[in-house]
Amino acid sequence: MKLYNYFRSSASFRVRIALALKGLPYDYLPIHLVKGENKGDAYKAISADNLVPALVTDAGDVLSQSMAIIEYLDETHPQPALLPANALGRAQVRALAQSIACEIHPLNNLRVLKYLVKDLKVTEEAKGEWYRHWCRDGLESCARQLARLPASTYCHGSTPTLADCCLVPQIFNARRFDTNLDGLPRTMAAFDACMQLPAFQQAQPSSCPDNEG
Amino acid sequence: MKLYNYFRSSASFRVRIALALKGLPYDYLPIHLVKGENKGDAYKAISADNLVPALVTDAGDVLSQSMAIIEYLDETHPQPALLPANALGRAQVRALAQSIACEIHPLNNLRVLKYLVKDLKVTEEAKGEWYRHWCRDGLESCARQLARLPASTYCHGSTPTLADCCLVPQIFNARRFDTNLDGLPRTMAAFDACMQLPAFQQAQPSSCPDNEG
Repeated sequence: MKLYNYFRSSASFRVRIALALKGLPYDYLPIHLVKGENKGDAYKAISADNLVPALVTDAGDVLSQSMAIIEYLDETHPQPALLPANALGRAQVRALAQSIACEIHPLNNLRVLKYLVKDLKVTEEAKGEWYRHWCRDGLESCARQLARLPASTYCHGSTPTLADCCLVPQIFNARRFDTNLDGLPRTMAAFDACMQLPAFQQAQPSSCPDNEG
Repeated sequence: MKLYNYFRSSASFRVRIALALKGLPYDYLPIHLVKGENKGDAYKAISADNLVPALVTDAGDVLSQSMAIIEYLDETHPQPALLPANALGRAQVRALAQSIACEIHPLNNLRVLKYLVKDLKVTEEAKGEWYRHWCRDGLESCARQLARLPASTYCHGSTPTLADCCLVPQIFNARRFDTNLDGLPRTMAAFDACMQLPAFQQAQPSSCPDNEG
């Protein structure tokens, strides 16, 4: 398999975690988002959505959208499972993942922050407040969801799931933008538990070949 | 089952379509987003994420996040299926759904548009441009994805899927904000095919008990 991605992209990071948890080898193909390589003709010919990540399967199919890719990997390489065995558990894990991937990250990714500054002429300070507002709001929502679940090492249960694949990159991103992470003990305990695993260490931005520090 | 939702909420509309396609009865419980009922103590006690929709199962479990709810319904009530039978097809359908639910809708929902006006002091005109920019950008991405798939009546294949559950509410919303929908023939053909089905008609905002016209 081949993964087109960018070291700092949260959505790319999610898929790198899933690949590492499953022990699947892949070719790492960097697409420099800040330089706009995702909008270049070469990448547009590969990826219909012009975003990272894009996973190219061994059969040559190009898959997009990180959560869809992770579900595909989980279906085609079931061990270790990234979703619980029962429908209720899967719904809870997907809801946690989507609380991050649909409520926090879309508001705070590079192209949106660029639009705020370039088109809406907001100040750097207001951009930072925007980031932290949606990030904190979404993480508090996750914390309330976690509070209703049985005690667990990771977000849901005793093994990492799709929810952890989404949480960990979001915490990395939150710290880059100085988001307040106080008062989220269960969330941060799950983060810390994940970061003790080699798969999360291998997938993090600083371990990527295109890492710029 | 009970569905807490709001007639105009796109995410609620997605779940109403899925319930209607599967012929599942439910109690319709309106939560008035514009009046902020989702932030009231009564609803906060029910829904951990304080958003709509929330589905309460017959066992009393409360599920959130529309795509997670639809996948749950598909797993617990498999017919008619809302995802293809093979992993590649499921990945394609989920990617289409997520292109809408993660790339368009989060930027354009009520609380974000409110933040633009109240906190960032953008004009009504700039708010409308923001809406149309992200909506058109995301719909063009969907169109490019559709162009790489085999010919189909709906977004993917000859029966409606999760992708159609997401597309149709987004088109309703796009029209409310006067988004240009020209040059998207395959997308709009899928939309038109969906709207010929009773399930989509029953689920639309104008059919809801809390519809305000």
